[in-house]
Amino acid sequence: METITVKAQSAEREEKMKYCFGVDVGGTTVKLGIFNTNGDLLEKWEIPTVTEDNGKQILPDVAASILDKMKERDILREEVEGVGIGAPGPIDSEGTVYGAVNLGWGTFSVKNELQSLLNIRVEAGNDANVAALGEMWKGGGQGYDNLVAVTLGTGVGGGIIVEGKILAGANGAGGEIGHIHVEDKEVEPCNCGNCGCLEQYTSATGVVRLTKRRLQSSDMPSILRDRDITAKDVWDAVKAGDPLAVQVAEEFGQYLGKTLASIAGVVNPEIFVIGGGVSKAGSVLLDYIQKNYIKYVFRGSRGALFALATLGNDAGIYGAAKLVLE
Amino acid sequence: METITVKAQSAEREEKMKYCFGVDVGGTTVKLGIFNTNGDLLEKWEIPTVTEDNGKQILPDVAASILDKMKERDILREEVEGVGIGAPGPIDSEGTVYGAVNLGWGTFSVKNELQSLLNIRVEAGNDANVAALGEMWKGGGQGYDNLVAVTLGTGVGGGIIVEGKILAGANGAGGEIGHIHVEDKEVEPCNCGNCGCLEQYTSATGVVRLTKRRLQSSDMPSILRDRDITAKDVWDAVKAGDPLAVQVAEEFGQYLGKTLASIAGVVNPEIFVIGGGVSKAGSVLLDYIQKNYIKYVFRGSRGALFALATLGNDAGIYGAAKLVLE
Repeated sequence: METITVKAQSAEREEKMKYCFGVDVGGTTVKLGIFNTNGDLLEKWEIPTVTEDNGKQILPDVAASILDKMKERDILREEVEGVGIGAPGPIDSEGTVYGAVNLGWGTFSVKNELQSLLNIRVEAGNDANVAALGEMWKGGGQGYDNLVAVTLGTGVGGGIIVEGKILAGANGAGGEIGHIHVEDKEVEPCNCGNCGCLEQYTSATGVVRLTKRRLQSSDMPSILRDRDITAKDVWDAVKAGDPLAVQVAEEFGQYLGKTLASIAGVVNPEIFVIGGGVSKAGSVLLDYIQKNYIKYVFRGSRGALFALATLGNDAGIYGAAKLVLE
Repeated sequence: METITVKAQSAEREEKMKYCFGVDVGGTTVKLGIFNTNGDLLEKWEIPTVTEDNGKQILPDVAASILDKMKERDILREEVEGVGIGAPGPIDSEGTVYGAVNLGWGTFSVKNELQSLLNIRVEAGNDANVAALGEMWKGGGQGYDNLVAVTLGTGVGGGIIVEGKILAGANGAGGEIGHIHVEDKEVEPCNCGNCGCLEQYTSATGVVRLTKRRLQSSDMPSILRDRDITAKDVWDAVKAGDPLAVQVAEEFGQYLGKTLASIAGVVNPEIFVIGGGVSKAGSVLLDYIQKNYIKYVFRGSRGALFALATLGNDAGIYGAAKLVLE
């Protein structure tokens, strides 16, 4: 009997060994999550991002919040596998950030700095790349380990997962697909300074821009005329069969489908996972992307699947947690 | 003294332990090389590729040739680290080929089949990907482990190396950059069945095609008029300052520079290594590519280097050998 009791205690201890934290640093808030190592999110919370003084306070705040949570839950350092963190800037596979404008950060090792604050193992990655890892692990790309995630939000972000790992690139700029050049005729500059980036046509603002141009250049009747419009309005109009909106959807699908075909020519993924605000339009969006993708893609990648992201704003904390579980 | 002798013998034995073979299967010949594990090519030779009967004889011929060479050089199985093999078809990271048209092969494990013929460890990869690995190891990309290799030959091939390893993709079609769509206006189909692939403008035949179109559509004087022309002739004319040839070089540079900028948006490499017959034109080629690349690339990849491949036809055997030394 005694042996059995000892075993049970040891098993319980073993059970307790398995926590990890996922941290997603944004421009205004930091999202944090505590997970067990099966990938169950046990609790999530947020703290404000203090960007003053070149974002000097961000990592100490993150560390303090994690240590508080460990105290609150009576978790020992030895019971934590690690802390993963994603942030909006180029971060290489070693955890070095090469400047993060929105946070005020320059170049330094996020991994080493947070690690020395916590005395717990840390891994770091770019936020879009980390979100891609999250969607692979527990989201729309579950079951696949060669994946391209596309985030259609205010901008267009991307994350490439190759054999289960983030493709961070030489200096953390891997998966920066929003700034792939897609249109020679563009005259308005993108935020990045170039002209004709994918982001200018397929982000939320890009979709509105395509619509306004079309409203101006044609007199086709449309429920989108003479009002303020959002990307959601445009996709609602597509679903309602509005002919001008359908033209916009075609144009959107062509830009994005063609670009994803090019990306497939490089990385040959099993699946594309489409997320971000624009993706709330649902499967109609995938139809427009996929039919254009098929037109342009090389046969080796013709079978790639298309899915919607499912984790929403939690993709970042999931992916960050996964960083330390690889 | 006795101890010293024993040590010397053991060191000699240790020295003898380090061989590997690199095999590059082509449509007409198979190139083979024996290397020491420092990467010195000790000897290379060729055997014919017997494509009859669905290429059934190819791997047994390769195995026999390797075993012969081992006998000839008095090398034991235990002294061979492994055999790497590249072949012209999609081959995934597990060594499975998904059909190789030029060899008559269907889908099977090249790795397992050659391994069981040799009783030596085997790794396999797509020939262009393997050549990229060779250029990283001992060629134009030496010292870098995030690399994109581009082969401008009869067709356009590519190989992507991420953190020192081949990006093979979900079903071996990673790095198939020759079939990235670059021109909506194209009406002539590419060999792959699509229209407007990179290969149609930047391969050897592509460069000739661009030149012929320009000769027909303008009456600009040119030393390339009224004669048979090759890609070499075109680049010689560029170097001689022929104005029409210079226009072709600009067009070539735009197609390729823009595509490499897109590729950089996906994988963010440290260096592009340009090889294949067309690359014999030398550094003038890089100038035209790079100036267009800079125009379109996202800032994170603006610092990528451009170099010429240096291993020529040996890149395949070097890279194949490297496959078993990772």
